Amino acid sequence: MSIVFNPSVRCQLPVLLLLLQGILIGIFAVFLSYDELSSAASLSNITVAKKNDMDTYFPLFKDIQLMLFVGLGLLLSFLKLYGFGAMAFNLVIANFSIQWAVLVQGFFYHYRDGKIHFGLENVMQAEFAAVTALISAGAILGRCSPVQLLLLSMLEIPLFVLNDWLINHYFHIIDIGGTVAIHVFSCYFGLGVSRILYRPGLRAGHSKNITTPTTDLLSLLGAIILWIFWPSFNSVLAKSAEAQHRAVLNTFLALSFSTLTTFALSSLMDKRGRINMVHLQNSILAGGVAVGASADMMITPAGASGLGCIAALSCILGFQYIAPFLEIKLKVQDQCGIHNLHGLPAILGTLGSILAILFERVDTTGHNLRGLITSDISIEKELFSSDTVEGNGAWNAKDQALNQAAALGVTFGVSLLGGYITGLILKPPCLVHPSDEMCFDDQPYFQIPTDSEETWSLNAQAQRELIVPLKQV
Amino acid sequence: MSIVFNPSVRCQLPVLLLLLQGILIGIFAVFLSYDELSSAASLSNITVAKKNDMDTYFPLFKDIQLMLFVGLGLLLSFLKLYGFGAMAFNLVIANFSIQWAVLVQGFFYHYRDGKIHFGLENVMQAEFAAVTALISAGAILGRCSPVQLLLLSMLEIPLFVLNDWLINHYFHIIDIGGTVAIHVFSCYFGLGVSRILYRPGLRAGHSKNITTPTTDLLSLLGAIILWIFWPSFNSVLAKSAEAQHRAVLNTFLALSFSTLTTFALSSLMDKRGRINMVHLQNSILAGGVAVGASADMMITPAGASGLGCIAALSCILGFQYIAPFLEIKLKVQDQCGIHNLHGLPAILGTLGSILAILFERVDTTGHNLRGLITSDISIEKELFSSDTVEGNGAWNAKDQALNQAAALGVTFGVSLLGGYITGLILKPPCLVHPSDEMCFDDQPYFQIPTDSEETWSLNAQAQRELIVPLKQV
Amino acid sequence: MSIVFNPSVRCQLPVLLLLLQGILIGIFAVFLSYDELSSAASLSNITVAKKNDMDTYFPLFKDIQLMLFVGLGLLLSFLKLYGFGAMAFNLVIANFSIQWAVLVQGFFYHYRDGKIHFGLENVMQAEFAAVTALISAGAILGRCSPVQLLLLSMLEIPLFVLNDWLINHYFHIIDIGGTVAIHVFSCYFGLGVSRILYRPGLRAGHSKNITTPTTDLLSLLGAIILWIFWPSFNSVLAKSAEAQHRAVLNTFLALSFSTLTTFALSSLMDKRGRINMVHLQNSILAGGVAVGASADMMITPAGASGLGCIAALSCILGFQYIAPFLEIKLKVQDQCGIHNLHGLPAILGTLGSILAILFERVDTTGHNLRGLITSDISIEKELFSSDTVEGNGAWNAKDQALNQAAALGVTFGVSLLGGYITGLILKPPCLVHPSDEMCFDDQPYFQIPTDSEETWSLNAQAQRELIVPLKQV
Repeated sequence: MSIVFNPSVRCQLPVLLLLLQGILIGIFAVFLSYDELSSAASLSNITVAKKNDMDTYFPLFKDIQLMLFVGLGLLLSFLKLYGFGAMAFNLVIANFSIQWAVLVQGFFYHYRDGKIHFGLENVMQAEFAAVTALISAGAILGRCSPVQLLLLSMLEIPLFVLNDWLINHYFHIIDIGGTVAIHVFSCYFGLGVSRILYRPGLRAGHSKNITTPTTDLLSLLGAIILWIFWPSFNSVLAKSAEAQHRAVLNTFLALSFSTLTTFALSSLMDKRGRINMVHLQNSILAGGVAVGASADMMITPAGASGLGCIAALSCILGFQYIAPFLEIKLKVQDQCGIHNLHGLPAILGTLGSILAILFERVDTTGHNLRGLITSDISIEKELFSSDTVEGNGAWNAKDQALNQAAALGVTFGVSLLGGYITGLILKPPCLVHPSDEMCFDDQPYFQIPTDSEETWSLNAQAQRELIVPLKQV
Repeated sequence: MSIVFNPSVRCQLPVLLLLLQGILIGIFAVFLSYDELSSAASLSNITVAKKNDMDTYFPLFKDIQLMLFVGLGLLLSFLKLYGFGAMAFNLVIANFSIQWAVLVQGFFYHYRDGKIHFGLENVMQAEFAAVTALISAGAILGRCSPVQLLLLSMLEIPLFVLNDWLINHYFHIIDIGGTVAIHVFSCYFGLGVSRILYRPGLRAGHSKNITTPTTDLLSLLGAIILWIFWPSFNSVLAKSAEAQHRAVLNTFLALSFSTLTTFALSSLMDKRGRINMVHLQNSILAGGVAVGASADMMITPAGASGLGCIAALSCILGFQYIAPFLEIKLKVQDQCGIHNLHGLPAILGTLGSILAILFERVDTTGHNLRGLITSDISIEKELFSSDTVEGNGAWNAKDQALNQAAALGVTFGVSLLGGYITGLILKPPCLVHPSDEMCFDDQPYFQIPTDSEETWSLNAQAQRELIVPLKQV
Repeated sequence: MSIVFNPSVRCQLPVLLLLLQGILIGIFAVFLSYDELSSAASLSNITVAKKNDMDTYFPLFKDIQLMLFVGLGLLLSFLKLYGFGAMAFNLVIANFSIQWAVLVQGFFYHYRDGKIHFGLENVMQAEFAAVTALISAGAILGRCSPVQLLLLSMLEIPLFVLNDWLINHYFHIIDIGGTVAIHVFSCYFGLGVSRILYRPGLRAGHSKNITTPTTDLLSLLGAIILWIFWPSFNSVLAKSAEAQHRAVLNTFLALSFSTLTTFALSSLMDKRGRINMVHLQNSILAGGVAVGASADMMITPAGASGLGCIAALSCILGFQYIAPFLEIKLKVQDQCGIHNLHGLPAILGTLGSILAILFERVDTTGHNLRGLITSDISIEKELFSSDTVEGNGAWNAKDQALNQAAALGVTFGVSLLGGYITGLILKPPCLVHPSDEMCFDDQPYFQIPTDSEETWSLNAQAQRELIVPLKQV
């Protein structure tokens, strides 16, 4: 039992959390004020505009919330003995990251007159930032303590905001769904961390790295919930109603075709034709990741559909051939396969966006593509400062294509390096680490019901006599 | 083991799926173009209208997605050993059916200037078509391979589109919730298929046709999700805001009263007064099925409530008395009880719509009923061509009542015959069929976690030493 | 077996339910008519307004439905052997309470010209009433029969409507999220009932009062779904778009900070630092309860965040120290800990609203606070009759603060007394009561799958031979 319970869990987690909450409330008190859409001090004649704002953002806000907390929470809960950790630490990382990103992005984009102007728009922007921390944490799922996960979020969020600003400000990237800004970034950041936290002891496998039919089904359910709301995710930032409509359609088609392709390829990979649940849980989403960089372009319905197929292909090949290579040769353990779902499809999707930019016909979409950058009704309008206007006269497809590629390269480098450094910061033994044996196990962190299925069936009679005081339930 | 794994699974499923995806993308490339609401080539001054379109359809689109993929997926996952198949094949059927219906309905309703004009409206219309394939597949749940299910969808979708066109074009049916067009059609189509695929070997029951407390609870959860969004389903096609509002209210009341009636009757059916989970999972939805044909009429709140009670009664009597008769006398096995949930309540609901038409007072609703047919703001406006306008002068309640009855009869005949023929096409032994023993079992199609509860508890120690290579998770 | 099955279950439940449904349909037939937004008899030129009404209420209506039926249903399903009862009886109480509240509130607020004018607004108002019955039932979860739960709803709904009217009419309470009207009321009503129905036999614990990892995970999932939609709940009644926006922000922040505080404090409470799932399932929601009374005020983001932390603290201290005291000293068994989640945070939240009223700066919010009471675009506009207008001239912060306190006191007294009396009415032995042994067990009420995990693994071979007739599934 002394192996299971690390006394510093009780010290480090509460102290860190309470400290962070206290500091954040303090900074909020000094710097955060309601923005003009949520403040009672605003003039009443903008009520109509406010109304529209709530109408526009609130439904999408709830979609994103469902994706982060229910969809991702369930998707991650596939391990037999680490369901509480997967869903609960997802809650911890997401909430802290949102609070922290509200501050960091607030000082970057919403700081005026000594105050961060705070509204639903800020929360939604912060949730996009939080997604990166949640994806990165997937690489090390079950191998890190919540204290380490909090530190990871603390370091990743500012780097994400910086990189996002870089690729928008200097490269004017077209990337409505965050294919580069979110998926490439979070994947290579996570792999960088995982490389440093490599555990040789898990190389030969782990007896707790197992699923059950119920956990696999709930995980698939989580993937399906992400699948349903992905069109919302990829279209929130659209700069016009027609671009938003198109982003929804393209994302839906990419997801639909990557779903059926997943079934075909997963069956093909097994010598008995049986489908692998891990493939289903991930690869049905690959189309949504890939199409993010071009969802609002005129890529045609067939283009979006084809991209979905290719994305699923890359994801499944990743699981079969690249993940083992990464683990054995490069010593990168990737528990949730984020490289297969986020890394590979996102790189393909960026290449797809470059092709789309180069081959789009000018008459309908030259106008369109410039519009995707310069329209000012976006929630990221601050990103496009005066230099964009000058740049506009010189806008051409080739430059934009180069910019997309450059943004991809920069993001790759920044995230991988950032992940490495973060890994080094998380490594010192003074931080709580679960032992190899206690990986993929809720026991060090949660009070587990004594009546789990296996014990029940083995000594059902003994259990029936167990007296659980009412107050504990 | 040779019984379990049919080598042709690996051949047929991937080949068929990849072929279908390739062909569909090819046809999409030639014929599909964004409609005027989602194309960048459109004039910018319709931005406001576009906005409204997204506002109108996008939230309802997500509701329908939740119903199909989460609600129905969970509802079908009640079998202990066939949870993956239920939820995953639901995904396969739904996605293929939507892609296929986009084409078929596209050529029927959205084809202009050599192109199918494609938008969110088309996807939503296609999802309604997909519902029919999903319901029909419920009759043969666990008894057919995914190849057979794909063929079923391939044949059912065009027949649904044809029948839907027939009953709208010739009979001007009032049927906002698809009581006839969707529920009657899919039920008798599915029963027709099931009749041909009758398995005498299952007559005495099947050791795998069992549920667990967890699967039953998740299945009830799926029913509840369908229950919550049913008002959206029944009101999407409403032709005015006031009719939509009424459709929501009537559907809610019908569902609410059929829920409590279900509890009462299910308890009454058992000699110890215990409620049957199968009744709960189905009959609480019966009101939603029945009220579909009259949800937008002025049937009064009490009328909607009463219809809900009667629908639940028909559903529970169906489970108790009619389903055994169908199985034993007519050799129709109906795994999910679609006849009880979709067939019987839908027939009652159509009769209800006839009564409502005949007895509605003219002063408030003669106007109303004509409005339900002739308004042109519907997404099905193409259905009502010039002859409707002429017909309008002659519109009277008696004719409409006869039309409702005729549409019911035609749909019944078309679907039953179509189902029979489809069954014959699915029957040849060259298609993958699970053996009787492998019915209701995921094993032939999925890699099952080796650590299912029963093996774990029987040899927990042996399991703990099992080395599962990391890369497989 | 004679202990398990109470023959009067079969008599009382169906008879009571069918009687209630019949009576309600009868009253509906006489008194309910569609309101001007859902009636075809309305003039067509208010179509635009109707549209807005659907746009405003329908999305929030679905959010509330998800909270009641999915969120709360899952949250309550934490007991290993009482999952069906938790989720299904939740459905019974909610549906009956909504139907009943539509009538009671209809006669109170929507009765004109001999008719209750019925629309989506009424249903939503009724769902708020139903929440009180659902919360109160949490105190006696697993200890009462559905007949008792129906009687509880029948008595609690009118008392809730009366108390809600009292504190609005006489004290003009500011309480957008129902902190006093819903949470304080339902908590002390439920504790009152539980006091009377005290079972000494459960004092030493109960062998069935246990959870499993799966039920605990699903219960946490339910809490997360409630968490996601709580901002909708607290902002539905907002009287302007800007107040609604602020209510969403404040509720989100309160929830987010109470979530992280919960992790910190729960870990701190355990000597090994392990988190308690019961704390997670409840305390992450405490911020939403507490902020309800001040969500639309200018309490600043930091204020909302701090309130969330304090609410979580009160909830966890409640579970650790106050719940055992209540049970042992005051003989109040509180199965779901409603006193910890609803009682304590709501009292704190009311105090918070008093402080916010006293300390808000006049320049921005004196106007604001008056606005929160007198605006007439609320769905509760009938609550504010002519005397409010006179009162307005004299409005001042001190009076309002006293009114908030008075409303809290009145609600506390009314609900506790009402609960006591209701408990006495539920107590007579002629009503079905589960025996002590059958508490927390689905067996008396549901047909349980014979193949629950424990029996399966103990005698898997025997099970495989079990023949379950097809018609039963």
